[in-house]
Amino acid sequence: MTDTTVTIVVDALGGDDAPTVVLEGVDAALAADSALSIILTGPVEVVESFAAARERVRAVPTTEFIDMAEHPANAVRTKKDSSIVVGCRLVKDGEAAGFFSAGSTGACMAAATLVMGRIPGVSRPAIATVIPASERPSVLLDIGANADVKAENLVQFGLMGRAYAQVVLGVSEPSVALLNIGEEPTKGSMLAQEAHALMVDAVPGFMGNVEGRDIPAGTADVIVTDGFTGNVALKLLEGLAKTLLTQVKDAMTSTPIRTMAAAVLKEPLMELKERINPDVYGGAPLLGVRGVCIIGHGSSNARAVAAGIAVAARAVRGGLTERIATAVGK
Amino acid sequence: MTDTTVTIVVDALGGDDAPTVVLEGVDAALAADSALSIILTGPVEVVESFAAARERVRAVPTTEFIDMAEHPANAVRTKKDSSIVVGCRLVKDGEAAGFFSAGSTGACMAAATLVMGRIPGVSRPAIATVIPASERPSVLLDIGANADVKAENLVQFGLMGRAYAQVVLGVSEPSVALLNIGEEPTKGSMLAQEAHALMVDAVPGFMGNVEGRDIPAGTADVIVTDGFTGNVALKLLEGLAKTLLTQVKDAMTSTPIRTMAAAVLKEPLMELKERINPDVYGGAPLLGVRGVCIIGHGSSNARAVAAGIAVAARAVRGGLTERIATAVGK
Repeated sequence: MTDTTVTIVVDALGGDDAPTVVLEGVDAALAADSALSIILTGPVEVVESFAAARERVRAVPTTEFIDMAEHPANAVRTKKDSSIVVGCRLVKDGEAAGFFSAGSTGACMAAATLVMGRIPGVSRPAIATVIPASERPSVLLDIGANADVKAENLVQFGLMGRAYAQVVLGVSEPSVALLNIGEEPTKGSMLAQEAHALMVDAVPGFMGNVEGRDIPAGTADVIVTDGFTGNVALKLLEGLAKTLLTQVKDAMTSTPIRTMAAAVLKEPLMELKERINPDVYGGAPLLGVRGVCIIGHGSSNARAVAAGIAVAARAVRGGLTERIATAVGK
Repeated sequence: MTDTTVTIVVDALGGDDAPTVVLEGVDAALAADSALSIILTGPVEVVESFAAARERVRAVPTTEFIDMAEHPANAVRTKKDSSIVVGCRLVKDGEAAGFFSAGSTGACMAAATLVMGRIPGVSRPAIATVIPASERPSVLLDIGANADVKAENLVQFGLMGRAYAQVVLGVSEPSVALLNIGEEPTKGSMLAQEAHALMVDAVPGFMGNVEGRDIPAGTADVIVTDGFTGNVALKLLEGLAKTLLTQVKDAMTSTPIRTMAAAVLKEPLMELKERINPDVYGGAPLLGVRGVCIIGHGSSNARAVAAGIAVAARAVRGGLTERIATAVGK
């Protein structure tokens, strides 16, 4: 069985090491998926020659660039010929089914929401991420699109996260949990209590509250929270994993004899680092917009870019947008 | 120079392994501090014989016990002769200057607030904890006393956390940061933006926003947040550190040769585990009540109990309550 043909737009300018790692990532993604086509947006001198040398790549030259430091919504409104805005428009116009960028998260979010538009019924799109847990990965959302939310938004995050877990983790009936500071329904903030009461009826697979310790434990397929708490949790997770593994490495190389012993353990420890590396899940989807939109880390390497493109293709093939429309439209 | 004489009340029934580990912890604390006296609250058969055999221990027998599962405020109101309520009353009555329990956090919080009362000017007491960061430790608060807060509460948390950092970390001019999802003052939730604006003027040493990744990095001496976000962050931190170190251990013992190499590295890794062990900072203070109140982890061992008692004594000697009264009363 061959995969369905899918076209993904890739922002050649997205990320700290663009365009080099983006182009390498595109090549890797194409090599891994023979039914994949790419549209590249970016400066003519970057995209034209690259596309000319490849069968399944089309170039759409753009003249503007949105910097990480710019105000996202303003930049999207004024820079209509930027690689991000044009990329989202190609999805809107049906030229491609999904968009990938490792550029400014805020600009991608603003462009996708303004240009592609929201799925009918979705009041607030949310950004999700896959947490590589010890037992099985979890989808965590919102990780920063909405710092202030209402309980109804959290219900929709649960439905959208569920659709994403079905498509990207391949779980047919994902469990959905609410992040809270106690297990009982009456625990936590007023927002969490209200959301719990609504989710019981509105979200299939709802298993109740989980706590902070459950995020890296893989207790639920989907963990729902507001964008403030989710962003703090994600950055804490990334920061601590990095700090701890560095400390382990330092401790293991503090004397020559220890360094020799550590050499024997390099392989399993690299495997572990690999297993908890979020790159393999390829970036963060903006859920709730009309079209697949995957946002990569600014520090993405070629492999992370390839993984992001692959996830975009998987989300398209799995009917992510339609699943969200059906779930939220109910 | 000898330390000032200090009396701390200890709840003999607090914690999963009470009273055994509590009594061992009291002995260790007494051995380490010759100017320390203890009042033990708990069942007569536990406290009387223990006190009779020791010079600096006095027994105050109690007849009731508050379980971890009980509704805290109700339990405190009805069980007036419980080890927790009597312990707090001994502080209120001036028989002791501080209280330590590894029992129910909610019950300790309710008892300390109701019985000792709040420091004039403090609207919401908060629970803090010391995060053992890689560079230098940070005080994080609130970690769960207040799931819903106003910006004014966060300002007071900053002032109270600062007093605690002065006394317990020994930093004379602690830096104070607001936990947020971006560094700029205009980032984050409405609450965070409002709190930032107030803290600039009201909190000495205020350095602005920090993000989730800064919690384990030791970027600020004091990190302020609401009790919902703080609780999620703390439990995530504890959960991830445990998960990661277990994964490192598993990876290192996956074959006989690796296990041999791992044996050479046991010492530095245990040292690391020790360095990031929160036990050394001895439990979580409830800040804002009239008297020192330190709440230990339910899973405290004798060493953690001893550390908690030592921190209570240090907080008393450092004038924690007076410092908070002065800072908040301004």
